[in-house]
Amino acid sequence: MTVVGSQVSGDKKFHWTRKDLLSVEELSKEEIEHILATAESFKEVSTREVKKVPALRGKTIANLFFEASTRTRTSFELAAKRLSADILNFSSSGSSTAKGEGLRDTARNIEAMQIDTIVMRHSSSGAAEYLARTSQAGVINAGDGIHEHPTQGLLDIFTIREKKKTLQGLQVCLVGDILHSRVARSNIWGLKKLGAEVTVCGPPTLIPRKIEELGVTISYDLDKVLPKMDVLNILRIQLERQSGAFFPSIREYAAEYGISNERMKKAKKDVLIMHPGPINRGVELSGEVADGSQSVILDQVTNGVAVRMAVLFLTTLVER
Amino acid sequence: MTVVGSQVSGDKKFHWTRKDLLSVEELSKEEIEHILATAESFKEVSTREVKKVPALRGKTIANLFFEASTRTRTSFELAAKRLSADILNFSSSGSSTAKGEGLRDTARNIEAMQIDTIVMRHSSSGAAEYLARTSQAGVINAGDGIHEHPTQGLLDIFTIREKKKTLQGLQVCLVGDILHSRVARSNIWGLKKLGAEVTVCGPPTLIPRKIEELGVTISYDLDKVLPKMDVLNILRIQLERQSGAFFPSIREYAAEYGISNERMKKAKKDVLIMHPGPINRGVELSGEVADGSQSVILDQVTNGVAVRMAVLFLTTLVER
Amino acid sequence: MTVVGSQVSGDKKFHWTRKDLLSVEELSKEEIEHILATAESFKEVSTREVKKVPALRGKTIANLFFEASTRTRTSFELAAKRLSADILNFSSSGSSTAKGEGLRDTARNIEAMQIDTIVMRHSSSGAAEYLARTSQAGVINAGDGIHEHPTQGLLDIFTIREKKKTLQGLQVCLVGDILHSRVARSNIWGLKKLGAEVTVCGPPTLIPRKIEELGVTISYDLDKVLPKMDVLNILRIQLERQSGAFFPSIREYAAEYGISNERMKKAKKDVLIMHPGPINRGVELSGEVADGSQSVILDQVTNGVAVRMAVLFLTTLVER
Repeated sequence: MTVVGSQVSGDKKFHWTRKDLLSVEELSKEEIEHILATAESFKEVSTREVKKVPALRGKTIANLFFEASTRTRTSFELAAKRLSADILNFSSSGSSTAKGEGLRDTARNIEAMQIDTIVMRHSSSGAAEYLARTSQAGVINAGDGIHEHPTQGLLDIFTIREKKKTLQGLQVCLVGDILHSRVARSNIWGLKKLGAEVTVCGPPTLIPRKIEELGVTISYDLDKVLPKMDVLNILRIQLERQSGAFFPSIREYAAEYGISNERMKKAKKDVLIMHPGPINRGVELSGEVADGSQSVILDQVTNGVAVRMAVLFLTTLVER
Repeated sequence: MTVVGSQVSGDKKFHWTRKDLLSVEELSKEEIEHILATAESFKEVSTREVKKVPALRGKTIANLFFEASTRTRTSFELAAKRLSADILNFSSSGSSTAKGEGLRDTARNIEAMQIDTIVMRHSSSGAAEYLARTSQAGVINAGDGIHEHPTQGLLDIFTIREKKKTLQGLQVCLVGDILHSRVARSNIWGLKKLGAEVTVCGPPTLIPRKIEELGVTISYDLDKVLPKMDVLNILRIQLERQSGAFFPSIREYAAEYGISNERMKKAKKDVLIMHPGPINRGVELSGEVADGSQSVILDQVTNGVAVRMAVLFLTTLVER
Repeated sequence: MTVVGSQVSGDKKFHWTRKDLLSVEELSKEEIEHILATAESFKEVSTREVKKVPALRGKTIANLFFEASTRTRTSFELAAKRLSADILNFSSSGSSTAKGEGLRDTARNIEAMQIDTIVMRHSSSGAAEYLARTSQAGVINAGDGIHEHPTQGLLDIFTIREKKKTLQGLQVCLVGDILHSRVARSNIWGLKKLGAEVTVCGPPTLIPRKIEELGVTISYDLDKVLPKMDVLNILRIQLERQSGAFFPSIREYAAEYGISNERMKKAKKDVLIMHPGPINRGVELSGEVADGSQSVILDQVTNGVAVRMAVLFLTTLVER
């Protein structure tokens, strides 16, 4: 696939049919690969002198964030602007709109303004699916409760594939708070579909029950599984939420699961260090490791814009 | 009038002369009809593949909201973007800018930045007129205290005319809190000018004194006037403000003035149900009625963008 | 220099080399004059029917404001839009991003999104320089602590030169709170480089020690120095911060240093009255003087957009 001027000539054999992106779980392997290929084309756009294509000119994208998020909102906003779409930012911490009834009315109002695609973050798992079902507009899930954060999962996979060429047979370990992590869930679905072996590793209190039913291996001992891993995707510890309840202390957590220079000595030389950000330096990983040669954390940020351009492009232009 | 490509060819016989839109009261019947005709052309733009015309390219519109308002602000922002204008969002809850002195300084500063048109919402009746008098920039009143909200009045009238073809002789009832409603005032002025018969109906505490001087009929008994109405425009009850002071209880209000399925049986089959939003479902009207076949509430939202495009277009491009 | 269509044909003999604008102190006289000449060209753009040139089309500017600022942020946003750049607004009062570590991570993330230029306001002196050193993106200092606010200094100088033709030998007095004023510092550096004589005048508690090392004259007696001044640049008193600590009372401050109609009688007929805004009317200067014939306060606002267009244009398009 190549982007020629304003044209994106996609894989002619693949026909994209979704107006929504709600989860990685719902995507086929072919759909994931089509998103990744489209993102590759768009990644090139952001390196040009003129970082802009007219692909979505005259389309309207709404950012509807019921939870604060500078990074993800900004990444989507930039993606929309580089596609020449018009973008409206809604943000709401109001409780009325957070309720089911309010969400439906909000969605209908947005739809009545002939908005093409809604990017939504919401604290309730399933909110994006509910919105998609009741709306003619496309819906991109930018994180719904502890369910999924599909564009984060896809950009993680894009980054791994970019560095390792293939995911087939790769050993990937998700480290930390698996229980509360929509990022973990989206990663697991995508990694498994593309043939990677997935291990989840963290304190027993932060590993959800029955997670092995998703086809992952569980470990509570990072030092034991570390040596064979090709990728460490380290999840954020939400200090404000968890301190005390899920592990004895931050120091103890860092000692057991934090990625330090010392611990890196046990890892493969070409291991990839990933983190969705923002990082708690000194907790999940040390500053040296975050900024070190094996870290691809900033690649993730760069690739996030490309993957979101691809997702907005495919869903907004789908035949309805 | 038709929009051909980027050109809007207006009614050649009509010459628009206002840089400001401060009230419906100040508009002639011909001016109202010119706005409605222009809005019809622009409504078509929002149904295109490319929902954008270059009519206001290189013009700058400022959204200056001293009261929070997601809906109206968003509708104006979208209207400006679909006209290709640049838009700046100011919002301020600060008390300094809310004072007269602050408002003048704010206006002068905005003007000094060569902004063409200011869209302002303010809690003081008359604020928009004050701003218009002291500013070279055009001023669109997006709601000033309990005075007027002219674009809401015009979009309501646009919607009625779209459904009923003419307003001449139509029976329109405004239901609820007439006292605090700038929407009611803008509706009354416009409806009367276009030949409709207007009834206001609500509890006596929420009907302003001397309102009959505007040429409206007053009723305190909805069930009595309901059967002859062609349009019910139901105003929002501001629960946070009124509970207790103006009527005994919300339940009692809903029983007397709420539009339920039961009450709808007494209405004409082709009555229009309108509401400026956001709806208190179960108070002013039931969910079934709000979503029912006679409701044109979402049409109002759609038409709001078109009417605001027309108003921004006409005022911004007026010869100065 | 002239702007012809979308082209800005600069002084061919001058080669701009900075990706950042961190202070006026670091600029040579030639660089200052090049910015002023470029700003003159751009000032004309804002008077056109279509107030927009495609100079920065496809470039991305980030507004990163760690302190609230409607005026400066808006002026930069407008400048970016009139240059056709895409602009992202970040605002943060969060303490985490305000720390050094957070600032670096924020900067790296922004950079990873291939943003060309970051406009930053920050409460710490030196923050812009730190960001510029650790970032590939250009950095425009929009105010850092009490250090500098270079675009304000440049727009003040632009305005003086516009009215007085030259700064050579001009008597300029900065009045009021010199101690906390980054505006004063940027003015002093620029005015001295262009040949003006600078006096700082205020209560002893608000004059920083060793300020005379910058080549300025110190006065505590406004009435004594007033008669010979060509320009009075009156600084804002931050009432919330200073009352009590730095001078006995606001009334006393106004009596000693406020510019009233009465005091204006002692000034030259063609003195320029300047203020960076927002004005505390009746404190630093009376309403009559602020709005009077010698006031160029609104010219400063107009010129601010032009100077910021010039700075964004030069830094963003520099060869890297």
